[in-house]
Amino acid sequence: MEDGEQREWGAKAWTYLSSVRSLSPLIQCITNFVSMDLTANTLLSAGASPAMLHSPNESPDFTPQVNALYINVGTLSDNWLPAMELAAQLASKLNKPWVLDPVAAGASRFRLKACLDLISLKPTVIRGNASEIIALAKASFASTKGVDSSHDSTDAVEAAKSLANSSGAVVAVSGAVDFVTDGNRIVGARNGVPMMQKITATGCAVTALIAAFVAIDPSHAMETTASALAVFGVAGELGMETARGPASLRTHLIDSLHGLDQTAVISGVKITAI
Amino acid sequence: MEDGEQREWGAKAWTYLSSVRSLSPLIQCITNFVSMDLTANTLLSAGASPAMLHSPNESPDFTPQVNALYINVGTLSDNWLPAMELAAQLASKLNKPWVLDPVAAGASRFRLKACLDLISLKPTVIRGNASEIIALAKASFASTKGVDSSHDSTDAVEAAKSLANSSGAVVAVSGAVDFVTDGNRIVGARNGVPMMQKITATGCAVTALIAAFVAIDPSHAMETTASALAVFGVAGELGMETARGPASLRTHLIDSLHGLDQTAVISGVKITAI
Amino acid sequence: MEDGEQREWGAKAWTYLSSVRSLSPLIQCITNFVSMDLTANTLLSAGASPAMLHSPNESPDFTPQVNALYINVGTLSDNWLPAMELAAQLASKLNKPWVLDPVAAGASRFRLKACLDLISLKPTVIRGNASEIIALAKASFASTKGVDSSHDSTDAVEAAKSLANSSGAVVAVSGAVDFVTDGNRIVGARNGVPMMQKITATGCAVTALIAAFVAIDPSHAMETTASALAVFGVAGELGMETARGPASLRTHLIDSLHGLDQTAVISGVKITAI
Repeated sequence: MEDGEQREWGAKAWTYLSSVRSLSPLIQCITNFVSMDLTANTLLSAGASPAMLHSPNESPDFTPQVNALYINVGTLSDNWLPAMELAAQLASKLNKPWVLDPVAAGASRFRLKACLDLISLKPTVIRGNASEIIALAKASFASTKGVDSSHDSTDAVEAAKSLANSSGAVVAVSGAVDFVTDGNRIVGARNGVPMMQKITATGCAVTALIAAFVAIDPSHAMETTASALAVFGVAGELGMETARGPASLRTHLIDSLHGLDQTAVISGVKITAI
Repeated sequence: MEDGEQREWGAKAWTYLSSVRSLSPLIQCITNFVSMDLTANTLLSAGASPAMLHSPNESPDFTPQVNALYINVGTLSDNWLPAMELAAQLASKLNKPWVLDPVAAGASRFRLKACLDLISLKPTVIRGNASEIIALAKASFASTKGVDSSHDSTDAVEAAKSLANSSGAVVAVSGAVDFVTDGNRIVGARNGVPMMQKITATGCAVTALIAAFVAIDPSHAMETTASALAVFGVAGELGMETARGPASLRTHLIDSLHGLDQTAVISGVKITAI
Repeated sequence: MEDGEQREWGAKAWTYLSSVRSLSPLIQCITNFVSMDLTANTLLSAGASPAMLHSPNESPDFTPQVNALYINVGTLSDNWLPAMELAAQLASKLNKPWVLDPVAAGASRFRLKACLDLISLKPTVIRGNASEIIALAKASFASTKGVDSSHDSTDAVEAAKSLANSSGAVVAVSGAVDFVTDGNRIVGARNGVPMMQKITATGCAVTALIAAFVAIDPSHAMETTASALAVFGVAGELGMETARGPASLRTHLIDSLHGLDQTAVISGVKITAI
């Protein structure tokens, strides 16, 4: 029974990945400096077309052309925040899906407020780790440990539902199990390997992949989000088979994402309703 | 006959690469955030010395020390544009070669104008994909697809000649075949593999390599440009032999570029007059 | 005798690395765009927790939470300098260790002054190449070759002692042999392989690793600094065994750093008093 459900999810994930490959959605990425390389390579390997254009001088011309927008606050500064806000406003106004990665949301009051302001601009999806989602749900600046989570993803399920309900976004929490909720339903994705957390920006990269998947079918943000998380995790599992450490895992993960075939996706994706 | 011509080009390319290795030209790179890592590693692997110094506070002291300047507008903003313009002015005034990569030139009016303004500062070489070169030649803001080309390189040959004539620069168009023209002559380079387009910033990296080659012999910008494109392509072909996807190709390409020997270059380079 | 000394250093280095792994110190990194990816991956592979938060809007909240601060002036601009200065002031005031990488210190007057101003904020450790340390000790803007050293590390021993005495910092000079001095004692570390200089940002990455080691035992900055340099070098030596060029060396170095065991560290570390 559960096996049948997983197969259905696998088939769904394969359909989305195939569409990303054939339609090559254009994804505007306003993301942090650390993650730009891995993010662009993740999108390219999945078949999408990344464009790291961020300037407020350009978004009025450029955002109307894109299929989705990805905003990540990792190396936030007061220079970049208006660029993020303008692009998010444009995306919302144009009914284009946009996805937020609230990196280290609780690390400072400035950052927390920036994330909450961005959330008021109606992201389609928010993906963070447990500490980030809890900080946002409580709207509280707390001593999280930098960009790494000090909570398990299971700790954040209620916070995620609450944030989904208050924001209208689908909320995803990454961890040993990834959770995705629209405030009502919850699904869990159990793909990936622990060593992925030893590679910088894998969280940022998978959020960008979510943007590419959501671009394919914006009215099913929960399904596309769960699928992107699982597909990235499957690529990590395959990459781990020959990895000798975090750096070779990174290489193999991207290679695997590029080469994923139907069998690997359908048999590998582990998504279930909770 | 054509074989003899290719051998001559191969010998020329080998001479340039050997000079880059022995002279280690210092290349000032004002480039986008996505490409900095690959660009620096490409230059180092080829034997050049990259320096990512961009601030207008520094260029008056620093640009006089360099052998060539490389400007790439990928993650353009109004913060960085004056830095690019100042360095380009200094390079022009000091008769140092400088090379422009007009990433996504047609993606916004701001970007198009910035590229045209930079071109008025007399770059030695401009390298772009077909869509970028067409946008510049027409000076028209058009809906290109972000940073990826929606045209074949052959579509852009006339645009490249026109841009070369109006700007005085050597113009290179990347694609399945790379074209290089000074507005009069045209040569084609047929190296590289399609998967290189699935690695972010390979275009940016090869433009930086052009800067290193042009630094060796600025009065032969067409020859050095074609050679750099072909040498990078040969490294990609060798890398592809053991690559399992885009990420391992990136690794193998850089390793191959570092290890290229005379035989590989002379037998591998495929340049012909057109 | 010397062998016994090396074993002691090896045991010490292993103790520090083990502590980094078990305590996972949080390291705030204000570093250049080129190096962010490798720096974060180096820290993660060593077991530390990197956080690339730089904005002056955040440091008053965030710097008090970190275990050490790492500042690198590579892609310096007048936008970023105040962020560096504020974080350094906070770290000094809070008695948190902070480490400076004065990339290309002599490349411009602006950069030299910025480095000297930062040094007046009392870094715990300064690590540079010979040309950088000489430029700082002489406080002279000189034509260095961009970011690469034009001096051997042995040329800089006196400059390093002088800088250590005037600044109060432990000073490390990287090169074929790495030197570390507090102005009085000197130790040398003879690990690493020449090809590491063909990978961009290895210098930046090892300075970040120094910050992680110093965070473990700030009152022994000389010992932790020498240990970090040697451990990174050992990882490079192991990585070199299977490397086919600079890019695969980079991958293998990070993999090796993640996997280093007690035997490899104790038998591999080559540190001696001089």
